[in-house]
Amino acid sequence: MTTALAYAAPSASEPLSPFRLERRTPEARDVQIDILYCGVCHSDLHTARNEWKNTMYPSVPGHEIVGRVSAAGTDVTKFKLGDLVGVGCIIDSCRHCEPCGEGLEQLCDNGFTGTYNGPVFGGENTFGGYSSRIVVDERYVLRIAHDEKQLASVAPLLCAGITTYSPLRTWGVEKGQKVGVVGLGGLGHMAVKIAAAMGAHVVLFTTSAGKVEDAKRMGAAEVVISKDAAAMAAHASSFDFIVNTVAAQHDLNPFITLLKRDCTMTLVGAPEHPHPGPDVFGLIFKRRRLAGSLIGGIRETQEMLDFCAQHGIVSDIETIAIQDINTAYERMLKSDVKYRFVVDMATLSEQA
Amino acid sequence: MTTALAYAAPSASEPLSPFRLERRTPEARDVQIDILYCGVCHSDLHTARNEWKNTMYPSVPGHEIVGRVSAAGTDVTKFKLGDLVGVGCIIDSCRHCEPCGEGLEQLCDNGFTGTYNGPVFGGENTFGGYSSRIVVDERYVLRIAHDEKQLASVAPLLCAGITTYSPLRTWGVEKGQKVGVVGLGGLGHMAVKIAAAMGAHVVLFTTSAGKVEDAKRMGAAEVVISKDAAAMAAHASSFDFIVNTVAAQHDLNPFITLLKRDCTMTLVGAPEHPHPGPDVFGLIFKRRRLAGSLIGGIRETQEMLDFCAQHGIVSDIETIAIQDINTAYERMLKSDVKYRFVVDMATLSEQA
Repeated sequence: MTTALAYAAPSASEPLSPFRLERRTPEARDVQIDILYCGVCHSDLHTARNEWKNTMYPSVPGHEIVGRVSAAGTDVTKFKLGDLVGVGCIIDSCRHCEPCGEGLEQLCDNGFTGTYNGPVFGGENTFGGYSSRIVVDERYVLRIAHDEKQLASVAPLLCAGITTYSPLRTWGVEKGQKVGVVGLGGLGHMAVKIAAAMGAHVVLFTTSAGKVEDAKRMGAAEVVISKDAAAMAAHASSFDFIVNTVAAQHDLNPFITLLKRDCTMTLVGAPEHPHPGPDVFGLIFKRRRLAGSLIGGIRETQEMLDFCAQHGIVSDIETIAIQDINTAYERMLKSDVKYRFVVDMATLSEQA
Repeated sequence: MTTALAYAAPSASEPLSPFRLERRTPEARDVQIDILYCGVCHSDLHTARNEWKNTMYPSVPGHEIVGRVSAAGTDVTKFKLGDLVGVGCIIDSCRHCEPCGEGLEQLCDNGFTGTYNGPVFGGENTFGGYSSRIVVDERYVLRIAHDEKQLASVAPLLCAGITTYSPLRTWGVEKGQKVGVVGLGGLGHMAVKIAAAMGAHVVLFTTSAGKVEDAKRMGAAEVVISKDAAAMAAHASSFDFIVNTVAAQHDLNPFITLLKRDCTMTLVGAPEHPHPGPDVFGLIFKRRRLAGSLIGGIRETQEMLDFCAQHGIVSDIETIAIQDINTAYERMLKSDVKYRFVVDMATLSEQA
């Protein structure tokens, strides 16, 4: 066992504060990673504050982890000392169910083990990336092909990147298709970049006129202010696919009616309170579909990282010190971030 | 022009009463049909009472029409005098859009013309099957292969039959799959019979314990009382497809969680008030899908009629006189019908 420095929420109502935890000595197939950067996902905040009613305390969030291999077990074959690697939302799964066999560990029938807050269906707590070190079975560790100088900006790909890449692939987005992205936050800005790199004609929907230029710089061909009914109507029944990244409760119907016949809008954000019900006429009159998608499997996460390296895609980030994490949460709640906070884990040592 | 006897709703608040209307003299491609029976669909009631806020008065409902060809235009090739034929929900469409070209007239980009209440996007009124005669372009007329003695029971196939057959085909239901049917009414009882004939393991969900035996007789392998949470939980994540026929506002989530990964529940009933919003966690954790489906195209309606004739499938009906239509509506609102009213149009002449 080795001791790692960390930041933890002691309870739902207390701010995150310095914490020490134990990491296991690497077993045969384990990779030990010295964490360099960790992205700040909205799920971190939901969990720290027990908004999904399943948090185990103390809670050490963080599942957008990048770092360097500092030790490896005797049977590790994919990684060696010094490699740049990533860890996303999943550090274990049952490995024998049908989804695990298909590389869909995020849909493991027996519940994957989250990088923090333990197994989906309950069990011993796990501690995430707001820490100096983590030990993970190599099956759940990703190679990073980006240039090392981009490393901080790569961290958000491990959750925001795969969460948007996976539905774009699952629903078969291809060159020339018209793809909508609802919301330009941590997830949405990755969706715009990735869909554009896939060759889609990307239309970004936002309520903020201030985000138009950013969206276009990221690859959106058009930006629609979703409160503008006439602008929305001009796009009726024209989309091959829409990925909706907005986790706040909102009316889905104005977006459903933008889908072509037989096409799908996929939700990747989980609101604290449910969205109002979909208008059934909007679904039946064009045989439209509403779906959900959850992160992505390990194989697909590697594919996404390689795709992003090849296309020069990283996240737009603001680097913070771990001591600023509570302030960052407050700013995130006000959407005051362009477009992802990433913690520089070197700052953890200042607590020592 | 010829005069036809009919029953019409003069306004949203008045009962249906005797009415006379004009039918055009058959043009080159027209088929004139003497109507023998007409099924009573819940849409008839919605329209008669303007519950969808688009009714043109006087309104003559009825789109589950069966009868005999009594005249045909010079260019009619598919039908001859004396043939038994049917007319469903659609009597015209633009014929040149992509959906029309694919035989999906119900999804016509320019809006199909309903058998009653005119074009979907507005236009001159049309009068439906609560009448003695109708004249329709042969493109929208269906052959009936059932035995003539079954004719009254065939009428509901023209809407209830195709509305359930089409999603079962669209979502690829096949032998051995586990298929759920929510609700045992006019639509639901057809879905049970058709899905069972396709070789599926059919599970019927109902709130009425009194419908268990009927559902099994129709082909359901299992019946689940949907208010029984334990019985529902036993089927979690096990369905390949669910067709939800309940038009009344209800919670969709207990059914969504019964779907396997990547599988779909399709809504075919349009509620007056929207269902509560779907639980996004239920969608994302198995990448499940919620969809809508609208009747079916002409080619598929013919396929359905032939499939039903081949498998001996008809509707369970109660035959009524047209003079009892208002009482029938009241009984329909109380679900007091097993499982479809069909009007014997011979009774229309009693008003003469």
